[in-house]
Amino acid sequence: MTFRSKDDLPAPLAAALQPLERTLETLETPAVLVDAEVADANLRRWQARCDAAGLINRPHIKTHRSVAWAQRQIELGARGITVQTVGEAEVMVAAGITDIFLTTNVLGPAKLDRLAAVARRSSLAVVADSAEVVEGIAVAARSAGESIRVFVECDTGAHRCGLAEPEDIASLAAAVDGTDGLVFGGLMTYPAAGQRLQSGERLETARAACLTRGLQVLVITSGGSPDMWSDEGLAPITEYRAGTYIYNDRSLVAGGVATIEQCALTVLATVVSRPTADRAILDAGSKSLTSDLLGLDGHGLVLPYPEARLYGLSEEHGHLDVSRCATAPEVGERLRILPNHACVVSNLFDRVFLTAGDTLLGALPVDARGRSN
Amino acid sequence: MTFRSKDDLPAPLAAALQPLERTLETLETPAVLVDAEVADANLRRWQARCDAAGLINRPHIKTHRSVAWAQRQIELGARGITVQTVGEAEVMVAAGITDIFLTTNVLGPAKLDRLAAVARRSSLAVVADSAEVVEGIAVAARSAGESIRVFVECDTGAHRCGLAEPEDIASLAAAVDGTDGLVFGGLMTYPAAGQRLQSGERLETARAACLTRGLQVLVITSGGSPDMWSDEGLAPITEYRAGTYIYNDRSLVAGGVATIEQCALTVLATVVSRPTADRAILDAGSKSLTSDLLGLDGHGLVLPYPEARLYGLSEEHGHLDVSRCATAPEVGERLRILPNHACVVSNLFDRVFLTAGDTLLGALPVDARGRSN
Repeated sequence: MTFRSKDDLPAPLAAALQPLERTLETLETPAVLVDAEVADANLRRWQARCDAAGLINRPHIKTHRSVAWAQRQIELGARGITVQTVGEAEVMVAAGITDIFLTTNVLGPAKLDRLAAVARRSSLAVVADSAEVVEGIAVAARSAGESIRVFVECDTGAHRCGLAEPEDIASLAAAVDGTDGLVFGGLMTYPAAGQRLQSGERLETARAACLTRGLQVLVITSGGSPDMWSDEGLAPITEYRAGTYIYNDRSLVAGGVATIEQCALTVLATVVSRPTADRAILDAGSKSLTSDLLGLDGHGLVLPYPEARLYGLSEEHGHLDVSRCATAPEVGERLRILPNHACVVSNLFDRVFLTAGDTLLGALPVDARGRSN
Repeated sequence: MTFRSKDDLPAPLAAALQPLERTLETLETPAVLVDAEVADANLRRWQARCDAAGLINRPHIKTHRSVAWAQRQIELGARGITVQTVGEAEVMVAAGITDIFLTTNVLGPAKLDRLAAVARRSSLAVVADSAEVVEGIAVAARSAGESIRVFVECDTGAHRCGLAEPEDIASLAAAVDGTDGLVFGGLMTYPAAGQRLQSGERLETARAACLTRGLQVLVITSGGSPDMWSDEGLAPITEYRAGTYIYNDRSLVAGGVATIEQCALTVLATVVSRPTADRAILDAGSKSLTSDLLGLDGHGLVLPYPEARLYGLSEEHGHLDVSRCATAPEVGERLRILPNHACVVSNLFDRVFLTAGDTLLGALPVDARGRSN
């Protein structure tokens, strides 16, 4: 699929695109670029995999935080979306997306009020891993006048949120099932990278514990881009939540999950100084790339100079060692950086810039930028 | 000075404050809190030091990115402000601040056009460390119909931008001096932490080299919060640019530059899960705290639980080891985190919340949030 102009874009992107009086040569840096062809191909490839495997696709919108991409994911076959915050849910519901799974414990009266408002306008599911959370959601459901589906979050090895013991999981599922206004939705996990087999076994055990209590588990939902193409431990999983796969990033390339060509998001930067033969300074720093390392060496891959090492970041400067480059960039040269972690980069700016190859198509709002609460 | 209500606030803050239907007990988390009394005391203490030392105070607004705080800094005696990006300059000029020093090399036609527009509305100074940058600024000055002061950036040990050799510095200063539309403003450096003595010596040498060419150096401007209270190498410095000192942060506490009580900015978070006796999960992750470590262990100091270790961050979760706490926080408990690095945290949200002790006064816009280009 070739996007030569705005007219070639999928409808949700074309509708949201803002025109620019800039080309890729004149666009001010630092700027977050998203190659629309590459991103769209990533979405289509994953949807085809889900369709072939009989998996429900429920992409996590935390990576792009853009309404248009969420609409495009649904247009291509996603069942609905996953969000991580009430703020993200509000933005998506306001744009007309009505099938939403919020995979964070929601607590506190103000947030539960807002959750109730979301529930009035959508088919809402949430997670819980404690009685306190279940009680709060029940209050929100009664306030909404609408039932809310609750998934019990299971810790299958990632050691973040979630219950680990099958009996605890089944017990909380029973508590949900017995609470007015709540419907037990199933089991949810975010597995540790590389531990999908163990994760699948634990989900089977948890399901069996639920069955012992007479609770059917219709939906078992798992997530994560790092292992999204693996068949390991997939048997019990009915729904998959992947986020980063739309853009990909240096961490997923390092993990063998994506090629550099499949990375849609880059940061366009300018060389603003060449103080020494070994050093180049870029105008993209931690306020454009973030300090996320994800276990990698350096703060990103400078695509035209793969031998260069982005060894340090100030807030508005990237510090680049070019001593191993056969030719090194000069002052004023513009180059693209593949960031370590796409999801935090798209959250730094109000807009990303859609491209198709070397053509700048326009700007796309990051509608839920900064909506972490 | 006690700020019991909005009416007690300094005028610029009172004018910008947005009312809230929340208290500190009901405000949704994660939220960036700024204790206005602490921040204002930090500003007054530093202004008094500059006044006593005969230093021009030109605070860097990158830390707060808020018009009201910039106005307050000027009201207290700052000569003008320092900005790091053209976008920051645009926001501040639009708010009526007219004495601006932009301490980044500006390159490219689109940015130079915007720089010219800023120059038409302000007394603008910028930096340069190469002929390419000087040429671009000259184009902007002629386009603006207004002279622009140019400081030569000197690398006095920090090894970011800047020229290191006195002859190179003097040569570029002469080039500036000989360019229509440009005025040689003086020497600028951002010294390496702990190397102010060396930095001062190098600035003296650079000044002498300029004098040899008949160039007076009226202004020598240095910066950095880590060494702001040191007298070392201060002799040649006429102007100081400090940024983080308004809010302070965990890195400055670790460096002995501020006490915890002098830290104005914290992130309010909620404990959303207690999966095990040793682990608590907060709703503040890398999209609220950033991954900046600045050489520290852990991602922030959980103020009510200093024995706890914030060992990991997901995007919306903080992973807290509470195994060394005598008592540990429960699900639903709200607590404040002192982040490692204040400047990148305030850039993540559209608003910070002004407090005075335990009173929530209102919201303050982060006007230049995301304006890194």
